[in-house]
Amino acid sequence: MKIKNNCIIGQSGGPTTAINATLSGIIEEIISSDLYHTVYGMVNGIEGLLQGKYLDLSSLFDTKEKRSKLTTTPSMFLGSCRFKLPTCEDSESIYTSLFDFFEENQITTVFYIGGNDSMDTVLKLSAYAKNNNKAVNVIGIPKTIDNDLPVTDHTPGFGSAAKFIATSLLEVAHDAYIYNVPSVTIVEIMGRNAGWLTAASALARTSYSPAPDLIYLPEVPFEIPHFIEDVKRLRKIRKNIIIAVSEGIKDADGNYISSCSHDVDAFGHKQLCGVGKTLENLLKSALHCKVRSIELNVIQRAASHLSSLTDLNEAVLIGKEAAKLGASGETAKMMCYERISDSPYTIQIIQADVAQIANHEKKVPLHWISEDHNDITPEFMTYLRPLIQGEPRIVYENGIPAYCDITHLHQKNYFHL
Amino acid sequence: MKIKNNCIIGQSGGPTTAINATLSGIIEEIISSDLYHTVYGMVNGIEGLLQGKYLDLSSLFDTKEKRSKLTTTPSMFLGSCRFKLPTCEDSESIYTSLFDFFEENQITTVFYIGGNDSMDTVLKLSAYAKNNNKAVNVIGIPKTIDNDLPVTDHTPGFGSAAKFIATSLLEVAHDAYIYNVPSVTIVEIMGRNAGWLTAASALARTSYSPAPDLIYLPEVPFEIPHFIEDVKRLRKIRKNIIIAVSEGIKDADGNYISSCSHDVDAFGHKQLCGVGKTLENLLKSALHCKVRSIELNVIQRAASHLSSLTDLNEAVLIGKEAAKLGASGETAKMMCYERISDSPYTIQIIQADVAQIANHEKKVPLHWISEDHNDITPEFMTYLRPLIQGEPRIVYENGIPAYCDITHLHQKNYFHL
Repeated sequence: MKIKNNCIIGQSGGPTTAINATLSGIIEEIISSDLYHTVYGMVNGIEGLLQGKYLDLSSLFDTKEKRSKLTTTPSMFLGSCRFKLPTCEDSESIYTSLFDFFEENQITTVFYIGGNDSMDTVLKLSAYAKNNNKAVNVIGIPKTIDNDLPVTDHTPGFGSAAKFIATSLLEVAHDAYIYNVPSVTIVEIMGRNAGWLTAASALARTSYSPAPDLIYLPEVPFEIPHFIEDVKRLRKIRKNIIIAVSEGIKDADGNYISSCSHDVDAFGHKQLCGVGKTLENLLKSALHCKVRSIELNVIQRAASHLSSLTDLNEAVLIGKEAAKLGASGETAKMMCYERISDSPYTIQIIQADVAQIANHEKKVPLHWISEDHNDITPEFMTYLRPLIQGEPRIVYENGIPAYCDITHLHQKNYFHL
Repeated sequence: MKIKNNCIIGQSGGPTTAINATLSGIIEEIISSDLYHTVYGMVNGIEGLLQGKYLDLSSLFDTKEKRSKLTTTPSMFLGSCRFKLPTCEDSESIYTSLFDFFEENQITTVFYIGGNDSMDTVLKLSAYAKNNNKAVNVIGIPKTIDNDLPVTDHTPGFGSAAKFIATSLLEVAHDAYIYNVPSVTIVEIMGRNAGWLTAASALARTSYSPAPDLIYLPEVPFEIPHFIEDVKRLRKIRKNIIIAVSEGIKDADGNYISSCSHDVDAFGHKQLCGVGKTLENLLKSALHCKVRSIELNVIQRAASHLSSLTDLNEAVLIGKEAAKLGASGETAKMMCYERISDSPYTIQIIQADVAQIANHEKKVPLHWISEDHNDITPEFMTYLRPLIQGEPRIVYENGIPAYCDITHLHQKNYFHL
């Protein structure tokens, strides 16, 4: 009888409400199709694994009920890291530690769920394995609310964040319309370089509410005089104006409009905050009217109570397909969605070389942005709409959602590799 | 055959997700028990009515289906105002306009849904009617997310905001725990002078998540050195600290901690913003660690997609009881909740003289705040817990909630009184 191998899963980068759904899908497929013996989970991604932090997912999620709870739990059950794996030339010891650990634990497949930075880890680990004849294959599975990965039609996590943003925007509009006083409301939405999420705010529009009246994406230069003109023009016909703006809008010279952007993270990305506040102050002095700004903040990526069922179902499915691909021995691939049709909305799961994705960013195509740079096109709406359909059943206990216990993320003592 | 009279309903003050449930309850009871001929609605409260803005609610909501949609619609279907009714001595013409309008339209009852400022309107109108022998009675119905009205056990709208805050806090905790980097997250919650909503963040605690670790209410002085000590002490035992703080915390001299508090609204209340940001900067310089602040902002009062079913059901019920009381001819009363028992949780609807409520504020009792002023007591939790139970069924269309059409709030042309 063949002795089955083990596998390990890691989560990395920023959280989404669908990344645990993918984790759940991988475990589900492995258990139901008996693909591996034990499914391990890295705690705090590859960085945590290097500190000896891992656990046994196959025993933790041994029932359908437990896996179902995991599917609707926000953020990352396994914890995350923002760790740029050094190149093998710079630090070979890291690679030998990791692959020694894999060998000792009969781990033949690494599944890594993350964004474009995390796919860099997939690329490096798979290249090391290939170049050093290690019997370990590495499969990447996308996730990011930012929807900025190439090849895949969209990313798991995007649809849920989009649904929360659209719903909140509609609720903010109901809040704004009640006073008979002219007002401008600026809603600041996440998205460093890509405007996908800000664009999704357009899904808030109904027959009675045109909000957001204006949408500004980081793909095109943000011209302050044009912005003020846009608002002035609208104020002549509308009492309450609602504006959706990406945190990452920049002027024609590429400088962020946001007021505090000096800090950078481990990947050299600028840390943004305050573009809403900056524009609020700008409009207050230019128009002398009531202006308020709202930052949707981390809630937009953590609000599992309002996920998109389409997103969660697809995230589970892409996890299942990843498990099959991993068990087949394939390596250096990232799972992708391919859209077959908009109506009826249909996708299939395909695979792409991870080198096509790692460290690349997919921005909103310019032909999906309106000519005057303050809205999106109907074609973009057709792309977005299917992604926010459906509501998962959330179990509540004591009046709040019943999510998975994540006590292990508080733990300090793990065995060191 | 007796010719039936008409009535009019107004909504005023800040929005909640339960104020339309009360409106729906009043209309429901009037239609099903045939209490009045026509139910009018003031658009933009008493201020809008003075500009001739009103509509016919009995035809707009003539089916159970339409009233059910109204029950789960956020903010105020009728629009609001922040208008301090002048005294009769200062401006009698306002009163004669209003009561002429009531007489011309056979309006014998005014229902006014609002907070303590709105109850001042109820008090003044009912006093005018009494002193001038006008056959108009006036009934107040409470609403405010702030829960700061005296006499009533709690206010409609509070439970839903509390449920959204507790859920978001738990989701923010899931978001914060994933990085193996010490961090402090400050969540700024609404509540100018009363800490009820900030206290409700404690409902986020689960067996695996102690968040919020610290809670600061405006009822007790906020001492910056104590605050820094609290955080320093916790950092020794916990990696990720989550703090709930009221927008209205003040120092021992009564000065707001928030950095920008110079603007005042029509009632002379200071407009607050930025306490989270102020504390974030303070902790960054004191502790040199990762600190972020999150402002829950207007979403906490507008998120109908996550209302408390208990809150909505009670809000409908208090509307129904108000309709009955109004039809009985009673005046100058505000409807109240009286708690019969915590477990099983039971309330009954009672009435109180509106003079007991108008312009009064109910703060959190000091014995419900922990001795070291950074948490709440178990008794307070017992009070809070029942108010967030249950989830209403929200109908979604096109991926977003299907709320009531509020086009009339955009309209500019109304007949002038």
